[in-house]
Amino acid sequence: MNQEIEYTEKTFTVKGFGAKGENNTTLVEMDIERPMIKDNEVIIDVLYTGVCHSDIHQVANDWENTRYPCIPGHEVIGKILKAGANIKKFKEGDIVGVGCMIDSCQTCAQCENDEEQFCTGPHGPTMTYNGYFGDPDSDYNTYGGFASHIVSTEDFLLNIPKGLDIKKAAPILCAGVTTYSPLKHWNVKKGDNIGIVGVGGLGHMGVQIAKAMGAKVTAITTSESKRKDALELGAHAVIISSNQEEMKANQMTFDFILITIPEAFDVNPYVNLIAPRGSLVTVGLLGPYKEPTNNMNVAMYARQLGGSFIGGIKETQDVLDFCAKHNIHPEVEMIKVEDVNKAFTKVNEGKVRYRYVIDMKA
Amino acid sequence: MNQEIEYTEKTFTVKGFGAKGENNTTLVEMDIERPMIKDNEVIIDVLYTGVCHSDIHQVANDWENTRYPCIPGHEVIGKILKAGANIKKFKEGDIVGVGCMIDSCQTCAQCENDEEQFCTGPHGPTMTYNGYFGDPDSDYNTYGGFASHIVSTEDFLLNIPKGLDIKKAAPILCAGVTTYSPLKHWNVKKGDNIGIVGVGGLGHMGVQIAKAMGAKVTAITTSESKRKDALELGAHAVIISSNQEEMKANQMTFDFILITIPEAFDVNPYVNLIAPRGSLVTVGLLGPYKEPTNNMNVAMYARQLGGSFIGGIKETQDVLDFCAKHNIHPEVEMIKVEDVNKAFTKVNEGKVRYRYVIDMKA
Repeated sequence: MNQEIEYTEKTFTVKGFGAKGENNTTLVEMDIERPMIKDNEVIIDVLYTGVCHSDIHQVANDWENTRYPCIPGHEVIGKILKAGANIKKFKEGDIVGVGCMIDSCQTCAQCENDEEQFCTGPHGPTMTYNGYFGDPDSDYNTYGGFASHIVSTEDFLLNIPKGLDIKKAAPILCAGVTTYSPLKHWNVKKGDNIGIVGVGGLGHMGVQIAKAMGAKVTAITTSESKRKDALELGAHAVIISSNQEEMKANQMTFDFILITIPEAFDVNPYVNLIAPRGSLVTVGLLGPYKEPTNNMNVAMYARQLGGSFIGGIKETQDVLDFCAKHNIHPEVEMIKVEDVNKAFTKVNEGKVRYRYVIDMKA
Repeated sequence: MNQEIEYTEKTFTVKGFGAKGENNTTLVEMDIERPMIKDNEVIIDVLYTGVCHSDIHQVANDWENTRYPCIPGHEVIGKILKAGANIKKFKEGDIVGVGCMIDSCQTCAQCENDEEQFCTGPHGPTMTYNGYFGDPDSDYNTYGGFASHIVSTEDFLLNIPKGLDIKKAAPILCAGVTTYSPLKHWNVKKGDNIGIVGVGGLGHMGVQIAKAMGAKVTAITTSESKRKDALELGAHAVIISSNQEEMKANQMTFDFILITIPEAFDVNPYVNLIAPRGSLVTVGLLGPYKEPTNNMNVAMYARQLGGSFIGGIKETQDVLDFCAKHNIHPEVEMIKVEDVNKAFTKVNEGKVRYRYVIDMKA
């Protein structure tokens, strides 16, 4: 999307590719009028935007909180076009990343602790799209990276380290930090026996990151067709989850399991794979599991079942730097913005290998 | 039960109070023939035995693994009547405790790490009752403390510290360690904001122990009638879980929540009470929750839901010593063994305040 911005005194208008309403969720090109940036904000000319499974959920109103029109996209890499008067750490022309958040209260204990995703300020974190500035009843919605331009506050901009290919780096801003954060917080370390369930947009990052942390990684997938890829990404072994003998042979062996399945599933078969006092963390599913958890199997071995959701801005910068250092890149397929509806369908069918990235200038 | 033991060359016979079969679960007096003790075992003359909710589950075959006849009782205090030839740390006449286990492989990594409850030896830990010696097909079942005498290996005997009242101490051997172990392993410390859900046999110990650890303890109960008791036990505040306003007002406030509800319940309302990166541990329920866990609420704040089950022998000794040091005693109602069926009914109705202890000599 090469687009000249139209400015008025108090607003500017950009092109976006979004959904108009709950009954009209095909993404179409539209004009988006936005309030003029404040002194601590920048306008970014979008270059590359990753397509995340949660974009599909949000556009479809699966979480019943979608603010239409909805312009998705929270894995964004672009060039600063216009910097507010108070911008100090960046300048116009800089290549930057924007992840899932673009603002927060910056004063609560969670923000002070670099966990802006848990911001307990009056409005919580301002999400990159489907969020709002100021009052939730305001018309000042946020709009994501399926657009010619995007706005962010300075403190939420990410540096893209030199070692990363900017064409491929966008998915690190969500898929990367979403898998890196639990691996760090649950203290995965050299020699640990780690399971990564689901080899998709999140899982293929999880395998690479856990491997780079020094863990022995087993990919656990429903799909025999992903065995070769998982091994190439660095997995030491692969378990096909429908093979009950294999699952049984691996009972009580994993120090930590990261589950990236993006839809309701039964967590109980995975609980049995965890070693005593080990943990399992589910990152893909933002809804109920398919079945009640059997606490017998959790309690008998003092196991833990956690969840995790993105990470703070410092941690997002950490994973960018970590990926640069270890030469980790998402496996991406480049598409044009006009092909994003087709891409959504393929993501839903599990056919993407492993992340679509929109080339906004193509 | 004052009972002279009848010895033969290879066996001895004691009196027990147990259930004959799945269709005959009223506890009745019966003779139990046991193999003569080995050199590392002792025969204990039982003085006091606590009544645990799990005794009721086991007698009723709720876990579909009951080996009848079933003599329950795993909170036992008694006097060593006969010590095997190799017993070194104890002598005949000593007052000792026996908790949920009486043996394990003693050689696996879990046993070496003082976590015998996770023993990965060929037979796992030998439970105090409903367990077996040697082969699971053997007739050498284990029988618990609803009996004149009980057998244990030396390494599983507990010292009863001088500061404890032996009439009241028995429940520490299960209810005590079951609540102490997660509070320790999840690192509850001075100043933490802790919720204890359920004020019963386990919960009333949890409140006292967490308080003695320096935490600010809130008891969370369905029952207004337990408010006064909870405050007297040391709770700083009480939440009635059916009061949705109170529950909402306490969202995201607890560093750690211990749930002691002994039957299937919906865990989701409690998840919302946990602070970001906080944990919840369920100890009472050895079966499935009532509803699937909604991972949205777990993941959004990187919470963890754990389970826990008793503790190792060293940890059981630790909680006995901890209770002696802090003058913590279970609240007990003493009963005769003949009244144990009535006691089971009252436990099921939630009417015990808070643990029945059988005085075996009454």
